[in-house]
Amino acid sequence: MSPPFLLLPPQIIMPSEFRHRLKLLRRRISESDAAALVVTHLPNVRYLSGFTGSAGILVVQPDRATLFTDGRYAVQAPQQVRPAGVHAIIPPTSILRAAGEYLGSRQKRGSHRIAFDPNQLTVAQHKDLRRTGGGRISWIFGTGWVEGLRLLKSPPEIAKMRAAARLISTVFDEVVPLIRPGVTELDLAAEIDYRMRKLGASGPSFETIVASGPRAALPHAQPTRKRLRRNELVVLDAGAILADYCSDLTRTVFVGRASKSIKAWYRAVLEAQAAGIAAVAAGVDSSAPDAAARRVLDAQGLGKYFVHSTGHGLGLEIHEAPRLAKGQKAKLQAGMVVTVEPGIYVEGIGGIRIEDDVAIHAGRTEVMTTATKELLEL
Amino acid sequence: MSPPFLLLPPQIIMPSEFRHRLKLLRRRISESDAAALVVTHLPNVRYLSGFTGSAGILVVQPDRATLFTDGRYAVQAPQQVRPAGVHAIIPPTSILRAAGEYLGSRQKRGSHRIAFDPNQLTVAQHKDLRRTGGGRISWIFGTGWVEGLRLLKSPPEIAKMRAAARLISTVFDEVVPLIRPGVTELDLAAEIDYRMRKLGASGPSFETIVASGPRAALPHAQPTRKRLRRNELVVLDAGAILADYCSDLTRTVFVGRASKSIKAWYRAVLEAQAAGIAAVAAGVDSSAPDAAARRVLDAQGLGKYFVHSTGHGLGLEIHEAPRLAKGQKAKLQAGMVVTVEPGIYVEGIGGIRIEDDVAIHAGRTEVMTTATKELLEL
Repeated sequence: MSPPFLLLPPQIIMPSEFRHRLKLLRRRISESDAAALVVTHLPNVRYLSGFTGSAGILVVQPDRATLFTDGRYAVQAPQQVRPAGVHAIIPPTSILRAAGEYLGSRQKRGSHRIAFDPNQLTVAQHKDLRRTGGGRISWIFGTGWVEGLRLLKSPPEIAKMRAAARLISTVFDEVVPLIRPGVTELDLAAEIDYRMRKLGASGPSFETIVASGPRAALPHAQPTRKRLRRNELVVLDAGAILADYCSDLTRTVFVGRASKSIKAWYRAVLEAQAAGIAAVAAGVDSSAPDAAARRVLDAQGLGKYFVHSTGHGLGLEIHEAPRLAKGQKAKLQAGMVVTVEPGIYVEGIGGIRIEDDVAIHAGRTEVMTTATKELLEL
Repeated sequence: MSPPFLLLPPQIIMPSEFRHRLKLLRRRISESDAAALVVTHLPNVRYLSGFTGSAGILVVQPDRATLFTDGRYAVQAPQQVRPAGVHAIIPPTSILRAAGEYLGSRQKRGSHRIAFDPNQLTVAQHKDLRRTGGGRISWIFGTGWVEGLRLLKSPPEIAKMRAAARLISTVFDEVVPLIRPGVTELDLAAEIDYRMRKLGASGPSFETIVASGPRAALPHAQPTRKRLRRNELVVLDAGAILADYCSDLTRTVFVGRASKSIKAWYRAVLEAQAAGIAAVAAGVDSSAPDAAARRVLDAQGLGKYFVHSTGHGLGLEIHEAPRLAKGQKAKLQAGMVVTVEPGIYVEGIGGIRIEDDVAIHAGRTEVMTTATKELLEL
């Protein structure tokens, strides 16, 4: 196996970057005349504070940021958030109620506007927060404020994502020789996940997909005990988390010698994917890559088999903004990282999907995944 | 490696069991004078309909049950839900809005009560659902209605969980010989995940924990590139998903020869765990096992190092009801499956945690995980 050090992310997130993120967020908070934002989504908590635990709420105010977490993280939390200038509190009871009480106790006079993201708080949590915060707080929507920052990746973030993309590409190269009749989908998924960790990933960024034969017609098939057979398409879709950031790669191979019609389908998807990638650029609508990929498949009568959108943003989470889909109006910008992954799915026969991770820079794009896209006949 | 067939779950969930679950749920819905329940939590959708996709909303009415999902599951969804008597709809737009419009169109006259679980719908989704459902619907809380059914496992469910528990125990036995100075935490995590899949698991039920030396003082440490050294405690905490059901196992080993004080700590945790397991029984308060485990550690002056609760329910999800913790009033019942996992964590030195999965039967309990609990010095 390749030496893991080659794949180590070259840069870390510096304390100054966390402080910069908090500064930008505070600007957004004050533009809305809010006194604080309650951050409840864990990837957002991690992005702003460096905290990696599985329970945490971050309250961001103009002059301070406070993390509420539980006893399991009593040692870890202060270590992780201190560089970002964040203070950690371990309340004896529910962290949500503690955050509500904390905010309530700080709003002594008059009414205060406190923001939360309605996509990241359940109805029950909202009720709890309102109750513990008390009647003086006026709760407002802070929809996507942190995601708006996460959308544009900094150079150290792009460097990590490049390393994660190369890592999963290396895993694919290593797994290709194992693809042959008789191995099960689960065997291959196990090999993929094992190898990504041996190369330094902390784990898969989503449940690895290996779908063979007619099962490849299910775009989101989970791997099963089904054995690969001769004359089957195999879709492999996997991503690695390296230093917190996700990658996402799909390749489709053929077991045996592909027929002319399979080859024609494969060429069509590959062409559609190339058209999608070519349409990715700073300044264009985020619907453009989808339209470009769809045009190619439509022209070959395959559009009806392309049942999902063309791609999605990627970062700390496997699915982020922007969406590359019909009807999306947002402009693509430098600093975004997106997948481009058209596919066709034919019931009873199988499916073909090809996916790369693409970083948008000023004036150019960078395909970060490097695995071959030739049709491999194994 | 052991032959995977030994670990195959012996029973499948029959169509009649899905229909029985829906029948019990309909009884709960009608007791609340509701016309429907909107099920938005995916494990609940799976439990009631058999659907395994990553996007789905199930609307359960007295005379029908309807799954809303997207184009990626056009082939898979109808196949999976038909045995449960559920009808699948693939709307052209948002599945939540489609569910709202569907419910709105069925409530022509007067006001209708429709239930949802406030823990499983975001504030934004709730707003969307209210808007698309229209003004005639009166939305009520159906908190934990499906979880209330999932709490009590049927014999085929227990059989699957027993197989999942044995599988992760076998994985632990296989990994023990690999634990030695020089291997990294990530290497061991990779071996654990690889082996569980080779034995038939679809994947880990949570991110595998391997924490060594002072890092073992972090109850929820993620594995790192840190290498194991001589004279360190190593906490290994992993679970497998087999046929949809989770297991959860923790063992702590010592690299080298343990000192007297480490041995005394280990014995204390083991005694606390035995006391916790002995306190698990149908009819007792769900706080009793926690109190029993805590009593043992308190008596040895170690209570202050036990910073989390004693256990949790287990099933389709890794954390379910009941909680085995202070202040919990619910009674334990036959059909529940819980973890018992006391631990102590000493900053700068390390931690010890021992965890088993325990099924509660009428008149007896069954420890389903089988890995040895002797202190292994490796």
